[in-house]
Amino acid sequence: MHLIDDLKWRYATKKYDASKKVSQENIDRIKKAVQLSASSYGLQPYKVLEIKDPELREALKPIAWNQSQITDASHLFVFCNYLNVSEENVAHMLQLNAEINGVDLEQLAGYGDFMNAKMKEKSSDEMENWTAKQTYIALGNALDACAELKIDSTPIEGFEPEAVNEKLGLRKKGLSAAVILAVGYRHEEDVTQHGKKVRKSMETLFEAV
Amino acid sequence: MHLIDDLKWRYATKKYDASKKVSQENIDRIKKAVQLSASSYGLQPYKVLEIKDPELREALKPIAWNQSQITDASHLFVFCNYLNVSEENVAHMLQLNAEINGVDLEQLAGYGDFMNAKMKEKSSDEMENWTAKQTYIALGNALDACAELKIDSTPIEGFEPEAVNEKLGLRKKGLSAAVILAVGYRHEEDVTQHGKKVRKSMETLFEAV
Repeated sequence: MHLIDDLKWRYATKKYDASKKVSQENIDRIKKAVQLSASSYGLQPYKVLEIKDPELREALKPIAWNQSQITDASHLFVFCNYLNVSEENVAHMLQLNAEINGVDLEQLAGYGDFMNAKMKEKSSDEMENWTAKQTYIALGNALDACAELKIDSTPIEGFEPEAVNEKLGLRKKGLSAAVILAVGYRHEEDVTQHGKKVRKSMETLFEAV
Repeated sequence: MHLIDDLKWRYATKKYDASKKVSQENIDRIKKAVQLSASSYGLQPYKVLEIKDPELREALKPIAWNQSQITDASHLFVFCNYLNVSEENVAHMLQLNAEINGVDLEQLAGYGDFMNAKMKEKSSDEMENWTAKQTYIALGNALDACAELKIDSTPIEGFEPEAVNEKLGLRKKGLSAAVILAVGYRHEEDVTQHGKKVRKSMETLFEAV
């Protein structure tokens, strides 16, 4: 099974070879896997920033625990969750659905009302946590896509969220930095590549009831 | 690329053929993909319950919006996030690491102290939300594994979390129901299988900065 082999292959890369770049073709594949990710109601309540500006990557490093991956990886993505799912966001999704599936928008009105009511049930904190959780499904698919392509990756939670939000001007755009993803090729000196994968036993992780 | 084809194939199945069962071999593959999922610090702060008791599945249905997938899918999993990551949990992970990689536990003590300090920084709410986010990476891998095996699946957030926690006795075990996953084979009458996938454009979802 491909996925299992890919998951066994990948590891959270600690040190990248800054001279090796991922091709645009493969970056597009990783982005496609993100786009196709499942999300609650299909709302995809996130935006993914690709940090291309080298100075901006340098500026992010000190607010991301000075991790070398921030500047040395071939590509750097900041997965940002929505602060809120607005009626406009719901309307946009319904519009897309109507166009793609060739149905009358009016037929989807009841579903839209249902979603809007569900969104309004959430407190501000609940909303942010809920959109962040959806974002993690997309992050996982990006990791899986990298592994299939034999591209190294590092999911990074070690950063100061509000400092990153401030640096990227996220909150005024209705976004918050959920998780960072570095993508590239491992440095031959990265000793973590030689470690064996540590995972809980199936008996610890699963329980039949 | 396999993953992209698999993601295009899958959809959130609304109606299952209750007569079709997923083989144990394939269930084990899906579980393996969950086990191999990335998580912050590798802590895997979740447990996955496989609900085998038919009466329990019936009892969960009314507290999961009466969705037919709860009872009709071949297999039903409840992904439960930890309420807290304790020093014992950290010690367990270090012990595993020491055994698997053949290193002295004492060499990992500093890393353990670091993790424990990071865990203590989180409020109870922050902790629960953080462990739930890790759980969603595992959920995503389960969805991807199903898709690769051409097994249908449904991620289900539509349930009353506290009622499910109560029914399964989760909180007293230090767990909370994060998300439910139904797995099986679609019913031929499930009309949602014919819908085209609705996703935001790459231009909406991504931004280069």
